[in-house]
Amino acid sequence: MAIEPFDVVDLIRIKRDRGVLNTAQIRWMIDAYTRGYIADEQMSAMTMAIFLNGMERTEIRDLTLAMIDSGERLKFDGLSKRTTDKHSTGGVGDKITLPLAPLVASFGVAVPQLSGRGLGHTGGTLDKLESIPGWRASLTNEDFYSQLEDVGAVVCAAGSGLAPADGKLYSLRDITGTVESIPLIASSIMSKKIAEGTAALVLDVKFGSGAFLQDPARGLELAETMVQLGTDAGVATTALLTNMNVPLGYAIGNANEVRESLEVLAGGGPSDIVELTLALAREMLALAGQPDADVESALQDGRAMDTWRRMISAQGGDPDATLPVARETLVVRATHSGVLVEQQALPFGVAAWRLGAGRARKQDPVHHAAGIDLHAKPGDAVTAGQPLFTMSTDEPERFERALQAVVGAYRIGNVGDEVLTGGPLIAGRIG
Amino acid sequence: MAIEPFDVVDLIRIKRDRGVLNTAQIRWMIDAYTRGYIADEQMSAMTMAIFLNGMERTEIRDLTLAMIDSGERLKFDGLSKRTTDKHSTGGVGDKITLPLAPLVASFGVAVPQLSGRGLGHTGGTLDKLESIPGWRASLTNEDFYSQLEDVGAVVCAAGSGLAPADGKLYSLRDITGTVESIPLIASSIMSKKIAEGTAALVLDVKFGSGAFLQDPARGLELAETMVQLGTDAGVATTALLTNMNVPLGYAIGNANEVRESLEVLAGGGPSDIVELTLALAREMLALAGQPDADVESALQDGRAMDTWRRMISAQGGDPDATLPVARETLVVRATHSGVLVEQQALPFGVAAWRLGAGRARKQDPVHHAAGIDLHAKPGDAVTAGQPLFTMSTDEPERFERALQAVVGAYRIGNVGDEVLTGGPLIAGRIG
Repeated sequence: MAIEPFDVVDLIRIKRDRGVLNTAQIRWMIDAYTRGYIADEQMSAMTMAIFLNGMERTEIRDLTLAMIDSGERLKFDGLSKRTTDKHSTGGVGDKITLPLAPLVASFGVAVPQLSGRGLGHTGGTLDKLESIPGWRASLTNEDFYSQLEDVGAVVCAAGSGLAPADGKLYSLRDITGTVESIPLIASSIMSKKIAEGTAALVLDVKFGSGAFLQDPARGLELAETMVQLGTDAGVATTALLTNMNVPLGYAIGNANEVRESLEVLAGGGPSDIVELTLALAREMLALAGQPDADVESALQDGRAMDTWRRMISAQGGDPDATLPVARETLVVRATHSGVLVEQQALPFGVAAWRLGAGRARKQDPVHHAAGIDLHAKPGDAVTAGQPLFTMSTDEPERFERALQAVVGAYRIGNVGDEVLTGGPLIAGRIG
Repeated sequence: MAIEPFDVVDLIRIKRDRGVLNTAQIRWMIDAYTRGYIADEQMSAMTMAIFLNGMERTEIRDLTLAMIDSGERLKFDGLSKRTTDKHSTGGVGDKITLPLAPLVASFGVAVPQLSGRGLGHTGGTLDKLESIPGWRASLTNEDFYSQLEDVGAVVCAAGSGLAPADGKLYSLRDITGTVESIPLIASSIMSKKIAEGTAALVLDVKFGSGAFLQDPARGLELAETMVQLGTDAGVATTALLTNMNVPLGYAIGNANEVRESLEVLAGGGPSDIVELTLALAREMLALAGQPDADVESALQDGRAMDTWRRMISAQGGDPDATLPVARETLVVRATHSGVLVEQQALPFGVAAWRLGAGRARKQDPVHHAAGIDLHAKPGDAVTAGQPLFTMSTDEPERFERALQAVVGAYRIGNVGDEVLTGGPLIAGRIG
């Protein structure tokens, strides 16, 4: 039996008493947890101590590197293209990856988007794409590399071999109330992204009612922490700090978000989606050596759409297939005329989730046609009787709880009233 | 399947965010944990949040009552005597229960001392008594009650039916670094003591290097918390706040602590043991309606010793048997002449533990003859070559690590140097 160099209770006590764990301690802790020597109950006491007492930058770096080393690390050495990737911390109506990945790839760079599924009120990119008939999220390593070389854009499921310690730790945090911690979020995201082997990374860090971290100052701290982690690990990293107080675009769900993404790829679409897609594309291309790429034209002239079609086809999807439509709809109308002054992201995300667009447990299926289509956005004038939003589901018994979620979440005021959006869409840039 | 009224993650978040849990939430939490619905990893996140964010008095009361209700509660209604009990938070060389229980019982009151075994550097009363040939810690309920009625004093193992939630929680705290928390210590001790059904209780709350809580102010807070809990539950409760910076008496171990207790019962013994035994006896008897009991005489005239002999015999022990003696001894001598100015409790407790007097894991046996006998106490003049203490063990390979434990733990200074004892033995009284 190997002799363990540390006692886990000693390490918990250090963090509990606001001390700093050193590199050897953190590396041992993650390794011992991965191989099951440290028990879940010990690690959950540690994560609560980290949640409440924080971590120094050196500890977050060591934690991230230790989680990377718990698994394999992808390499794109053989690729003829430069790699550039994007990660969003998650939001309501956030379908940006769908137009963004093909747009950026249309400039000859590789976008290896290893994505997750949604849990709770935030949607998952794979769930959205799976509403396209035939499209599959799982690729062999060979298919992944050849699609990256040929098409440039790949959105697929991350293998379980990347940062397995993070997978184990995330499941634990989910059931022990320790999700919303900057050191733990930063190391979780960055360990996976660095292990994925991308040369460049743009982070879309959300703040506001629909984000993990509501306070912009904490969003900024998270963004700065992650940019530092990426930079230290040799990944060219920047971040945009973006407003998640209001849903992104008009569609919240799965199939409807694909429809809205297609509008953007066709040169149209909601202005907020277009603005964020273009801003992120510019960041990604700048890091890949194309700071002056004319991303707007690539949406207008069909180059991004062409890449989209090739990307969907390469993964078995039919880009011309009809997307699923829900069996039942319920339209909510304006009770009086005025101006829509408020539309909170979180309640609308929860409502879409309750309609079936999201899942409560990992193993649950999602209903691809379920969701919400907004017909007005904050600042829009509305008249009495006008549709404000439409709820869609295959199971009409879900309407009641979905409606409950949005009670008080939107408000029609008078002309001249303050419109509550929490500021501009893009609040800052870090990098 | 019953519907659960709360979500444990919500409750963890409340405590994590410095909120206050209400009675229904705490009762449900302890019940759900006892029946296994709440997982250990969830409860350990909760205990770390309690450790770091504390609990209000109402929460500590609710937690204590919920743990009592997780099991059975003893009743002494049929007894002709009044019951009075003592609990020490644990120390080095703390054998006070041994002379104290028969001394108090000799005044016609019942002392139902349900005790534990030692873990780590603090010894357990049952371990000490088990060094008496034939003595057994387990009694049937019938034998327990009849010994209380006939002899008055019973020291025996607590059944697992008392506050089982506390047993489960204590094991968890032990491996997750959440032992030294006032709300958790107070509720753990008081749930067991209240469930034991005693009418009166005197607490010996330790502070100093050999105690759980080193800071006297935190010891005072713990004492006040426990006195309040007992009083609220209808148990007449007082506490003494006592100094645990220096080992109690001269003997640290098991058999040697019984020998020292016999000296006290014979009217002699170390002055600190006598002082604390008498002070606690006066408290216990005052709560049992005998504020003027002449406890000093009962030690001098053999009444306490008679009760001791009956107590040991009733549990199968031979009060005249020879106590075990270790096979090997090692004498540590003064390197120069002067005054012993320091003798730290914790290192000497650890050394005795390493000699075999204590156990590292619950299932380990203790060596009854192992331990340390001190030959000088702080303030004593010593001459070069004079024995300072003797280490005893059956396994001489243990000497090295035991000696390491006491390096720097004692010091010979010059006449007139400050003697570091951390103040008087009894620092305060609460009640």
